Amino acid sequence: MGFGMTAQALNENLIGVPGGQAMLQTPALVIDLDALERNIAAMAAHAKKYGIALRPHAKTHKSVEIAKLQIAAGALGVCCAKLGEAEALAAGGIPSILVTSPVVTDRGIARLIALNARMKDLMAVCDNAETAKKLDAAARESGKRLKILVDIDPGMGRTGIRPELAEPLVRQVAESRGLEYAGLQCYAGQVQHMESPNERRAASLNALKELGALRDRLKAGGLAPKILSGGGTGTFDIDPDARVLTELQVGSYVFMDKQYNDVWEKPGDRPPFATSLFVQTTVISANRDGLATTDAGFKSFATDAGPPAIAHGAPDGANYFFFGDEQGGIFYSGDRKLKPGDVVSCIVPHCDPTVNLYDVYHGVRGGRLETIWAIEGRGRAA
Amino acid sequence: MGFGMTAQALNENLIGVPGGQAMLQTPALVIDLDALERNIAAMAAHAKKYGIALRPHAKTHKSVEIAKLQIAAGALGVCCAKLGEAEALAAGGIPSILVTSPVVTDRGIARLIALNARMKDLMAVCDNAETAKKLDAAARESGKRLKILVDIDPGMGRTGIRPELAEPLVRQVAESRGLEYAGLQCYAGQVQHMESPNERRAASLNALKELGALRDRLKAGGLAPKILSGGGTGTFDIDPDARVLTELQVGSYVFMDKQYNDVWEKPGDRPPFATSLFVQTTVISANRDGLATTDAGFKSFATDAGPPAIAHGAPDGANYFFFGDEQGGIFYSGDRKLKPGDVVSCIVPHCDPTVNLYDVYHGVRGGRLETIWAIEGRGRAA
Repeated sequence: MGFGMTAQALNENLIGVPGGQAMLQTPALVIDLDALERNIAAMAAHAKKYGIALRPHAKTHKSVEIAKLQIAAGALGVCCAKLGEAEALAAGGIPSILVTSPVVTDRGIARLIALNARMKDLMAVCDNAETAKKLDAAARESGKRLKILVDIDPGMGRTGIRPELAEPLVRQVAESRGLEYAGLQCYAGQVQHMESPNERRAASLNALKELGALRDRLKAGGLAPKILSGGGTGTFDIDPDARVLTELQVGSYVFMDKQYNDVWEKPGDRPPFATSLFVQTTVISANRDGLATTDAGFKSFATDAGPPAIAHGAPDGANYFFFGDEQGGIFYSGDRKLKPGDVVSCIVPHCDPTVNLYDVYHGVRGGRLETIWAIEGRGRAA
Repeated sequence: MGFGMTAQALNENLIGVPGGQAMLQTPALVIDLDALERNIAAMAAHAKKYGIALRPHAKTHKSVEIAKLQIAAGALGVCCAKLGEAEALAAGGIPSILVTSPVVTDRGIARLIALNARMKDLMAVCDNAETAKKLDAAARESGKRLKILVDIDPGMGRTGIRPELAEPLVRQVAESRGLEYAGLQCYAGQVQHMESPNERRAASLNALKELGALRDRLKAGGLAPKILSGGGTGTFDIDPDARVLTELQVGSYVFMDKQYNDVWEKPGDRPPFATSLFVQTTVISANRDGLATTDAGFKSFATDAGPPAIAHGAPDGANYFFFGDEQGGIFYSGDRKLKPGDVVSCIVPHCDPTVNLYDVYHGVRGGRLETIWAIEGRGRAA
């Protein structure tokens, strides 16, 4: 037992111990490895069936090990949201990465170019002429071309250029000696969590129709995009029908979360992927009837999508609420009393930003701690 | 420029560079060192004036350097919320720590006892007889007594035992050979953010009145508490009047945040401490009129207290909103157009869990980056 020990060291002596999961120091991020492996295989089979490539978004898991599992199952490579994430996964040996957020500052571009020099296959995105000029100049100076996807705005206005305005920027990129025009990116984030399957389908296909029309215009102008990258877990089974995207940027399917489970909770629907990610928490105080306090609050769950759902460990019907920075609360009824030391497992409200709070995953199978994986991309938002 | 570089390395070549703050790779957590130092000095002067001790809560800053500044200004030591935080700060040389959340599991108690063996002055809390028994047994086996504050519930039901039920537990702790009964902890978290000064005063004094009555009963029974630890930034100037607490656990005053500033924003009020903590973010896309997208979203701000307030860098009246995991958005109007690369500085909605998202602080003075401090306790929620 140590002094200033790392998250890795905190629980590693439990690896292989029968029942070790129940003894984890908590709050701890736990992966059900069987469910994770099933999800990775199911998405790979789906993509194969529809003849579309997979470039899963590592902004969800931020982990070298999970990226390797996805690539072993057939993914081309991965996406990273930020340059820092890409640096971390590249350092772990991931050879092919698309950075999906624009890199625009001089110092950021210098880091991007340095990463490009060391990587087999790096791609970046760009949505304006000024930045394209800077990227071109920096890449030319480095002596290695930088692959670029022009980022297209599917109507949400977050990043990208609107399809009707994109052609001059595509031409500029294609004519820049330092840049290699590789295609287009178009991520319709606004439709991923629509809970009506019909509306989700219509909105996604509509965004892709615009993108398809742009592709056709570019083709006619001699600027055919090789890659069209986009899509998410919420539209994984809708987007291939449009026959516009060449690759899917699905992220959350590896873990699922309360928010995505809710997308498929309507009558007749069932989430197409299993929940594989949990926060394990421990009751630390239980002096009142029907109320227990746990060790996981605002610092252990992202709170943008409400409180977590209890998966097991508490009486049926119990509800989890945030009880401040450090603690959660559980309201419950019935004969069984929760007591200090009781272990409660939760489905996270929103997986990506919750993962971002932890240094390691605890991979379990049947209650046994099998492995601890670093979350190399955690906190690499810059 | 590196490959998988740490947060420390990302910006350290800017230390001392004139105008270096504006070149930080972002999102970055920034401290205005002048404001931080003023806040630390002001709270120390306040405590001295009222003859009350200070044990600032390090759950806010999680930093060895800031804890050292607080101790140099006269604090007895610090509080940590969790055992992992205490391990991290103790490893950095902080000699006196109170762990304010109950430690209840066998493996947690083993870590606590190991930490106690290596530290000059460690205190833990306890709110039930069963845990007190376990702590006693483990401490006896270690050969070094463990200092305990009995945790009193001021009515919020989070942790602690109600004052009217506490005496038997206090007696048990006092009679345990492995434990040293050091006093009581009572933290009224529920009153810290009440926006009516009168209600805040009444609620806090009421909780302390109950605590004072318990103290008097204990004294009469030969169980006088030496330490009575509690209070927060919201009641720092109310609690000394009650003459019950012997020390204040104030935390957020070092930084302040939107939530605490709002407590004092009523007419005639002014926050008693300066905002010293900021998230610096950069515009990465600006293809639409009146809308700019930044690089700081759910992964760069805790979201439990709403969106951040813009401090500078955007037109007057601009509003920041969360635009997903990785991005923020700014709605604005007027002639000045935001463009990619523009730097915007934000007051964080809630300081403690926002700090928990970052590995380092960037300490600035007058636009110059003076120092980078590690956040040793980040992510040590277990």
